[in-house]
Amino acid sequence: MANATSMDVFVSLCKRRGFVFQSSEIYGGIGGFWDYGPLGVELKNNIKRDWWRATVQERDDVVGIETAIIMNPRVWQASGHVDTFADPMVDCKSCKRRFRADELVEHKIEAESAHGHVVETAGLRCPECGGELTEPRMFNLMFKTFIGPVADDASVAYLRPETAQGMFVNFDNVLTAMRRKLPFGIAQIGRSFRNEITPGNFIFRDREFEQMEMEFFVMPGTDEEWHDRWIEERFNWWTGLGVRKEKLHIREHAREELSHYSKRTVDIEYDFPFAGFAEVEGIANRTDFDLKKHEEFSGRSLKYFDEESGQHVVPYVIEPAMGIDRCFLTVLIDAYAEEEVRGEKRTLLRLHKRLAPVKAAVLPLSRNERLVPSARRVWDLLRPHFMTQYDDAQSIGRRYRRQDEIGTPLCVTVDFDTLTDEAVTIRERDSMEQVRVPVSGLVAALREKLDGA
Amino acid sequence: MANATSMDVFVSLCKRRGFVFQSSEIYGGIGGFWDYGPLGVELKNNIKRDWWRATVQERDDVVGIETAIIMNPRVWQASGHVDTFADPMVDCKSCKRRFRADELVEHKIEAESAHGHVVETAGLRCPECGGELTEPRMFNLMFKTFIGPVADDASVAYLRPETAQGMFVNFDNVLTAMRRKLPFGIAQIGRSFRNEITPGNFIFRDREFEQMEMEFFVMPGTDEEWHDRWIEERFNWWTGLGVRKEKLHIREHAREELSHYSKRTVDIEYDFPFAGFAEVEGIANRTDFDLKKHEEFSGRSLKYFDEESGQHVVPYVIEPAMGIDRCFLTVLIDAYAEEEVRGEKRTLLRLHKRLAPVKAAVLPLSRNERLVPSARRVWDLLRPHFMTQYDDAQSIGRRYRRQDEIGTPLCVTVDFDTLTDEAVTIRERDSMEQVRVPVSGLVAALREKLDGA
Repeated sequence: MANATSMDVFVSLCKRRGFVFQSSEIYGGIGGFWDYGPLGVELKNNIKRDWWRATVQERDDVVGIETAIIMNPRVWQASGHVDTFADPMVDCKSCKRRFRADELVEHKIEAESAHGHVVETAGLRCPECGGELTEPRMFNLMFKTFIGPVADDASVAYLRPETAQGMFVNFDNVLTAMRRKLPFGIAQIGRSFRNEITPGNFIFRDREFEQMEMEFFVMPGTDEEWHDRWIEERFNWWTGLGVRKEKLHIREHAREELSHYSKRTVDIEYDFPFAGFAEVEGIANRTDFDLKKHEEFSGRSLKYFDEESGQHVVPYVIEPAMGIDRCFLTVLIDAYAEEEVRGEKRTLLRLHKRLAPVKAAVLPLSRNERLVPSARRVWDLLRPHFMTQYDDAQSIGRRYRRQDEIGTPLCVTVDFDTLTDEAVTIRERDSMEQVRVPVSGLVAALREKLDGA
Repeated sequence: MANATSMDVFVSLCKRRGFVFQSSEIYGGIGGFWDYGPLGVELKNNIKRDWWRATVQERDDVVGIETAIIMNPRVWQASGHVDTFADPMVDCKSCKRRFRADELVEHKIEAESAHGHVVETAGLRCPECGGELTEPRMFNLMFKTFIGPVADDASVAYLRPETAQGMFVNFDNVLTAMRRKLPFGIAQIGRSFRNEITPGNFIFRDREFEQMEMEFFVMPGTDEEWHDRWIEERFNWWTGLGVRKEKLHIREHAREELSHYSKRTVDIEYDFPFAGFAEVEGIANRTDFDLKKHEEFSGRSLKYFDEESGQHVVPYVIEPAMGIDRCFLTVLIDAYAEEEVRGEKRTLLRLHKRLAPVKAAVLPLSRNERLVPSARRVWDLLRPHFMTQYDDAQSIGRRYRRQDEIGTPLCVTVDFDTLTDEAVTIRERDSMEQVRVPVSGLVAALREKLDGA
């Protein structure tokens, strides 16, 4: 996908085919919030499942967890989010539009430094109307709420801006319950919230989003080596999902853009049609910052007893962290293709079989009264095993195109021969090759082609 | 499980073995919020997967969706939640404790009516200290937050108290994108939030919880029949998970306890040790209330064109709705058993194989230097296929008990014979029967015993 026009085509496909809807659309929407439709939720679940399998199930050194979105507010004081998780904001005095000061500055000096966070807005004007801007003021990105009936300082709580703190405050619980030794990791998938000043670019930057984060606890001194290993692991995960290697690259954070807790951070970036290379995953060395802060604020020891050295140490932490929504956007954009087939254009999602929302579609050749019951029996046979669709509307060619457009890897066609030979045709999405298989062996044949997906 | 003592034992098992932790425990917790540990998250994911398979994948008439927790606030005006989603609250003037007035009243008159919602507190005293109570005042249970930097009425938004409205506002999007006809359903799994005055009973009543809800849209007039069908479907789902039938029953809501949108509601109840029979799932006939309200408030048509009658109609809705946290508690309590085996006590979770967090544990007979590498190779073989554990600490009998206690259906033992015959022993949790199988056939043997779990 090359440019802004195809981005519009793509966003419209996402809505039309049930991948992504604007949240609360009938009420004019709500900025920075999106809903996943019937196909979107399957793709999202497949991404989560694949990450969980690679990060938790198949490894011998990582366990999962799922913590509450609302935590004790002291957590966010300890982590530094109450004091420092803020963006500089300016308003235009004439048109009243609101901007992130650092983005305006970046925009102006992008030739010199694409990622500087210096906020010096003197001389800048509103990019929309040319009006005068206010002085920048810091705006905390955590959504606030109140627990209990009285909305005062004592009852204030926050929607988590990252899932990571759920792992840090449970470090000792997990260590004990799971009888773990270093190095080991705790992984989590869950929603997070950031009150972004300027959400945008479809689901690229949301106010409500879902994260997949893993905190890998290691002995101090082994952190740099583990950081390198995780960068490699995570890069391989992306290419293993079928994302084109030439569209991905790895970028080191400059010292001045590092988060307050980080010793070194590396981003995996994807070349988006609307933004150029932009972060899809960050792999940070968070050092012992978080555990030490929680020791200080909670008064509880979060040290690990190292039998070998006989010492109590606060582990270092390597954190691969990503947003699923952005991953969703990446795999969809990367899979999107338009091609000519026998003089006809087809739109295609070349999604990895493990990610495809629908694994197999059952298509009777026509709505013939003998074919339909036979096709529905085939559908009944497949539903317990795979996510499927049934479609008998319009020509078979048109229905193949519809399945291509949503990335269905396999179509199963029921024709008049089926009525006598009890066999069906399997058609593959990418090659469009067709093979005939007996209905009795269909589940096994599909399973083999899907390679356990 | 019979009484409060065993409930304490059970809660402690949940913490000790990594099922459920108090949220933000190192900061003294936070009332009504809980975290799921490494085993808890697997059990929870298995419950979700089973519900999704039964409700979405295997049916030909339901699709999934996943909507934002924060929606346009007009949604909650239309649904009636801003005006009526409130509980009556009273404070004790002496000890300052806070109560739900309806619960105090219920407590007093439970002999007459177990579910009355009449709030008449005259003459009631504080159940803790006997002090005088304030007049009851209504307290809205929706958590409030603010979008954007200014916390005023224009920016107020709510954390959803139910996922259902996400389906209603997307009714037309899904109908169109998925080219559906009535009857059809939209299902969703996701977090919801209720600012409960008195959360409690472990994870029975949380302030943050996760729901599995499905809105089934039907032609008016067919709603009563569909309601009965869904009550049966849902009851069978519970028993299909292995929950004992005699511990479940179905209860009709009395007219005065029906929600404002409901024509008829039926609860599936479970006999909890701490509460007696209490709701684990509600199946409501929500009529056309929600869609009509959204038509009124949004100005958008949410009618369905019925080709047969040539008429535009607002569908009726049957809604099976449940909280996963309470389902989690139910299946765990129901599976919990203590029994004598050869003069020794064992604690056991007789979890359905599909629900068990760990499917198979790999146990070398001892930490012998020849057994351990062999056992680790077996573990490597299994991890891509199943959620597993490896344990080589302490005696083999002790390790079987540890796996029994977390409900692991199968243990794989590697012994000295394995080194020569390349075979291992599979031990079943409930029967404790053992069979010897070759390592080369182990994945297939486990898969068969787990019956596709």
